[in-house]
Amino acid sequence: MSHHDVYARLKELDIELPSAGAPAAAYVMSVQSGNTVYLSGHLAKKDGKVWVGKLGDALTTEDGHRAARAAAIDLFATLHGNIGDLNRVTRVVKVVSLVNSTHDFVEQHLVTNGASDLIADVFGEVGRHARSAFGVAQIPLGACVEIEMVVEVN
Amino acid sequence: MSHHDVYARLKELDIELPSAGAPAAAYVMSVQSGNTVYLSGHLAKKDGKVWVGKLGDALTTEDGHRAARAAAIDLFATLHGNIGDLNRVTRVVKVVSLVNSTHDFVEQHLVTNGASDLIADVFGEVGRHARSAFGVAQIPLGACVEIEMVVEVN
Amino acid sequence: MSHHDVYARLKELDIELPSAGAPAAAYVMSVQSGNTVYLSGHLAKKDGKVWVGKLGDALTTEDGHRAARAAAIDLFATLHGNIGDLNRVTRVVKVVSLVNSTHDFVEQHLVTNGASDLIADVFGEVGRHARSAFGVAQIPLGACVEIEMVVEVN
Repeated sequence: MSHHDVYARLKELDIELPSAGAPAAAYVMSVQSGNTVYLSGHLAKKDGKVWVGKLGDALTTEDGHRAARAAAIDLFATLHGNIGDLNRVTRVVKVVSLVNSTHDFVEQHLVTNGASDLIADVFGEVGRHARSAFGVAQIPLGACVEIEMVVEVN
Repeated sequence: MSHHDVYARLKELDIELPSAGAPAAAYVMSVQSGNTVYLSGHLAKKDGKVWVGKLGDALTTEDGHRAARAAAIDLFATLHGNIGDLNRVTRVVKVVSLVNSTHDFVEQHLVTNGASDLIADVFGEVGRHARSAFGVAQIPLGACVEIEMVVEVN
Repeated sequence: MSHHDVYARLKELDIELPSAGAPAAAYVMSVQSGNTVYLSGHLAKKDGKVWVGKLGDALTTEDGHRAARAAAIDLFATLHGNIGDLNRVTRVVKVVSLVNSTHDFVEQHLVTNGASDLIADVFGEVGRHARSAFGVAQIPLGACVEIEMVVEVN
C-alpha cells in the first residue's frame, strides 16, 4: 500500500479514531485466524452511547446512513487496536450490516452505504468489499444498526 | 473435478446463466481472499426485476422455494464472472439465506432448499455446504429472499 | 493445548455430548476449508425437540440463555463428530447468534451469553471469540435461538 495511506485519508476526512470499544458481553471485538481478521458486530453509537431506534419508525434513512458511518469508524478503531497499522489491510473482504427495521422499511442498502462509502473512501482500492445488508427485528440494547466486517491483512 | 462438469449439468437442467448482476449500492458482488470467494447477498429476481414480497403474507413457501433457486442461479453467474470456470470450485463452503418473513412464518428451511438442492445438483459432491437460514424483518427493495455464499476454489 | 483438555472440562461441567444432529434439510452440519471449520446454524433444542418460542413473548431472557447454552452443546457435538478431537481447536473464531425476537426485545446479547460463556469455559483461552447477535423475525420450525460458529483447527 505505498500509494494510499489510510491514516492520511482519515485525517483529511477529519475523522479521529475513538479508543477501541469493549464488548457488551462475553466475547472479544476481533479475532485473527491466518491472514483473516473477523470483527464482531459493532453497535452504532452517537456521542458515545448506543444509537437507539428503528428504521421506518423513529429514524429516517439519513439517520441510519449516519449511524452506519459511525459504526464503520468504530470498526476501524477496533481493527487499528488489533493489527496496529491499518495500512496492513490488503483487502476489506466482507461487510454484514444489520438494520433495525419495521416490517415495511426497504432501504437497508441506502443505510448501509454510510459504512460502505466510508470504507471505500478510507481504504481506496482495497476497500471494495462484498456485502450483505438486511432488516432485523431488533438489535442488542435497541441499537439502530449493527455492522460486522471481515478483513484480509498481510 | 474430472468426473463432474458443472456447465454440462447446468445445460442438462436447461439453466442459462445470466450476465453477472451489478450491486445495488457501494460494494462489489464478490471478493476472493486466498482460496476463498465471498459472494455478496444476492436478491432474488423474477424476469430480471427484484422479486418482492414477504413469506407468510403474499408469498407461499413454493414461491419462496422458486425465488431461492433463482438467487442461486444468479450466485452461479457472479461466481462464473469472478473465477472464470465454475469447475474450479473445490467446495461450496457456506450458504446464508435470509427470508423476508412475517413473525409467524417458520418454513425458511424449505424456502432455502430451493437454493441448496440446486447447488448440490449442479456441483455434485463438492456442493454439500454448511448453511444458516432464518427469517428477517425486511430485505433491500422489498426482496423476498437474499442469499450469500462462501466458496473454496483451487 | 497441552494445559487445557476440553473433554475433562465438559465432564467437570457434567455435560454429555449428544450424537451429532442431522440437518433439517438439503445441507450438511459442518464443512472444513483449509484450517477453518464452518458450522451450520444449529437450532436450540430441549429434550431432543426444537425449542420453540419467541423472546419478548412466551420466553424470558433466562429461557433464551438456557436455549443458547443448549445450542452450543450441540455445536460441540457436531464439531467433535467432524474433527474427531475437540482439543484440535486452536481458536473459536466467530459466533453468530440469531434470536427469535419480538420487535421490542433488546436483550439478544444476554441470551447469547448462554453460548459464549460456555464456549469460553469449555475451550479456555482459545474460546475467546468474535460475535454478532441480533433479533430475527423467525427461525425454521419456530426455534427460539439459532447459532452458527466458525472454528480454526490444527
